[in-house]
Amino acid sequence: MTIIDIINKKRLGKELKREELEFAIEGYLDNSIKDYQMSSLLMAIVINGMTESETINLTDIMLKSGDIFDLSKIDGIIVDKHSTGGVGDKVTLVLAPLLASLDIKIAKMSGRGLGHTGGTIDKLESIEGFNVNISKDKFIKQVNDINIALISQSDTIVPADKKLYALRDVTGTVESIPLIASSVMSKKLASGADVILIDVTVGRGALIKNLKDARRLANLMVKIGKAYRKPTICILTSMEEPLGYAIGNALEVKEAIDTLKGNGPDDLLEVVMTLCSIIIGATKKISNSEAKKMLINQLKNKKAYNKFKQLVEAQDGDITNIKVSDKAFSIKSEKEGYIAKIDALRLGEIAKKIGAGRSTLKDKIDYEVGLVLSKKVGDYVEVDEELLKLYLNKKDVSIKEILDCYTIVENKIDKPKLILDIIK
Amino acid sequence: MTIIDIINKKRLGKELKREELEFAIEGYLDNSIKDYQMSSLLMAIVINGMTESETINLTDIMLKSGDIFDLSKIDGIIVDKHSTGGVGDKVTLVLAPLLASLDIKIAKMSGRGLGHTGGTIDKLESIEGFNVNISKDKFIKQVNDINIALISQSDTIVPADKKLYALRDVTGTVESIPLIASSVMSKKLASGADVILIDVTVGRGALIKNLKDARRLANLMVKIGKAYRKPTICILTSMEEPLGYAIGNALEVKEAIDTLKGNGPDDLLEVVMTLCSIIIGATKKISNSEAKKMLINQLKNKKAYNKFKQLVEAQDGDITNIKVSDKAFSIKSEKEGYIAKIDALRLGEIAKKIGAGRSTLKDKIDYEVGLVLSKKVGDYVEVDEELLKLYLNKKDVSIKEILDCYTIVENKIDKPKLILDIIK
Repeated sequence: MTIIDIINKKRLGKELKREELEFAIEGYLDNSIKDYQMSSLLMAIVINGMTESETINLTDIMLKSGDIFDLSKIDGIIVDKHSTGGVGDKVTLVLAPLLASLDIKIAKMSGRGLGHTGGTIDKLESIEGFNVNISKDKFIKQVNDINIALISQSDTIVPADKKLYALRDVTGTVESIPLIASSVMSKKLASGADVILIDVTVGRGALIKNLKDARRLANLMVKIGKAYRKPTICILTSMEEPLGYAIGNALEVKEAIDTLKGNGPDDLLEVVMTLCSIIIGATKKISNSEAKKMLINQLKNKKAYNKFKQLVEAQDGDITNIKVSDKAFSIKSEKEGYIAKIDALRLGEIAKKIGAGRSTLKDKIDYEVGLVLSKKVGDYVEVDEELLKLYLNKKDVSIKEILDCYTIVENKIDKPKLILDIIK
Repeated sequence: MTIIDIINKKRLGKELKREELEFAIEGYLDNSIKDYQMSSLLMAIVINGMTESETINLTDIMLKSGDIFDLSKIDGIIVDKHSTGGVGDKVTLVLAPLLASLDIKIAKMSGRGLGHTGGTIDKLESIEGFNVNISKDKFIKQVNDINIALISQSDTIVPADKKLYALRDVTGTVESIPLIASSVMSKKLASGADVILIDVTVGRGALIKNLKDARRLANLMVKIGKAYRKPTICILTSMEEPLGYAIGNALEVKEAIDTLKGNGPDDLLEVVMTLCSIIIGATKKISNSEAKKMLINQLKNKKAYNKFKQLVEAQDGDITNIKVSDKAFSIKSEKEGYIAKIDALRLGEIAKKIGAGRSTLKDKIDYEVGLVLSKKVGDYVEVDEELLKLYLNKKDVSIKEILDCYTIVENKIDKPKLILDIIK
């Protein structure tokens, strides 16, 4: 067996055997297979696809390339949650304490983001003092004590994915449903949770551009979950405009806190409620609508917010100290009419440009910068009325670039559909 | 423009613009584009193909990546010849002096081979003293003086192809018609000849496995030639069994000399005669059959052989000193019947294994080793009758491995068709 035989086989669209995938991944990890060979194989996979059985095998090989977390010392149902990435996506920051306030265990490890803003871990670090690096023992104890801990993903979890992802990022081989499925699921399965929630974002601002592909990805991940007897629930959400109003690390944490206090944006709340009510409905054996009532109550009575406060304190954070840049600029509309589109992708790129996200894993994030929308799709805006507030620090952006993200029309626009499907 | 945009465009099967191909090739040559990015782009090209216009653009960009030879100081029609590679292929060694003996100019630069045996240049070096590295001025003078010179390809000719080919070789991205066409034609066009002859080998022992692909490749190369007003003639020849009897560097030179003296194998002679009569017919304005007669005469009267001798002397070689290993072993048949198949690919691999070819460009070739067939497809063989002679030196091979290359059957077998098509 040589890597060239394996590449040629996949180039011709044939199914790779488990041994062949193993040979490729193990060889890549021990450097006997070179970057330029792996990228060639990855491109052949991206174009010619992988069968379900290849994808499950690849997931398993990746999963076993590193440590698998044993969370058996945590009592109760442990839930993990992942998003395929969206602009303004702070769902985890609301969902995790909300579920924890109802006795669901959240033992979550997150990677640092290479997206338009940081990942959940980066966002939490915008809270002064928040420690994302705690020992495994302390992590387990904290989940047993207060139901929740959010830490940085260990380097020993799925090293194969880490190395492959870095290569895919620079070789145009990111957009592949089987590769995305095996990357997400190998990490989730290695993290040891009992139930896996995945938000598959769909649209211009997301990795997956259309509903058909999103359904394929979701079905594949649910199937992989089944192969490991881990219930996996995918929610397909639209990512045409940003989620909620805030984009940027500290700004998103503040919006999450508002939401936990019962004052959140409708769209963010809708995603959180849909995901949480599935879990609460199933674990408490109540109907979905009863679950929703219970959840809304947790926001109103501040129990969800208090759980978040408890989490921040347990991980040495100071919730009263979340800095946002004081250089805020109001961007005003030059047109009047209904907002038909807010280009999430381009606004995300602007957020990254001003420092809210990373281009390489070595870049430093500026937690204090970002944008806060004043209007969403469907809203009416007048000339000179504020479209958004821009929070800058060291890096700049042109106003025209921001205004170009908006499409404003004469006729009334309906609010777009947010939850596109649920697959489990 | 970024390389990732270009890779993604080709991944989605879109046509790349000239600027995009230029960006990729130039960036690869100046190392701003990495091996792993180029191999990803190459795999996308191999699977999704390239249009004619992309292929012509790529050829032109590669051609202009290095020196273009100016042979205008040579009087008369200069012919260059190339083969896409076959086992036992010593056509150039016969064709070049034969044409030169009829006043056609042969100013040929060849690369060193990575095939089952060495390339033409390597084969010539099996003649004691033969110098393949002579200056450009001496090269041109020699062609003007004796009509022929065969030298090693300059490193300054199409450096892009050199770098790309080395990468394709280790990343499973060799088998692509547009990439083969642009690789061959960029080198031929940079070498400055007036007429380009290409032997496109087809079959198990060749890069191109079927006639349909061979026709596509030939048509593409003829079209590229037309774009530069260089008549390009492709002959499609079967490469199921080795060409002629000898495989191995010195052994092939000896067979070429026999052929130049009028004692060559039928199949080798058929290829040589077909290619040469097209050239001689056109330049002397005579019919193909008259051209063939003239060519056969050049063999009979030893003028072709004397031209080869003159070439060898001009380049400091000693034609009386061509060493073949004295460790010769007779491999005998275990079965009786008609030979239905001689697997060229596997015999080629055996030749390489015993030292006749290179695996990497740094490997040293053993000129003295090889195989000489005693029988060809269609011949009858008895039990214990010799199938071939094996010439070994330092490296060994099992007899079973050799016998496995033969298929022997009861019923009479017709001699296979050799010349499959001519495209010009």
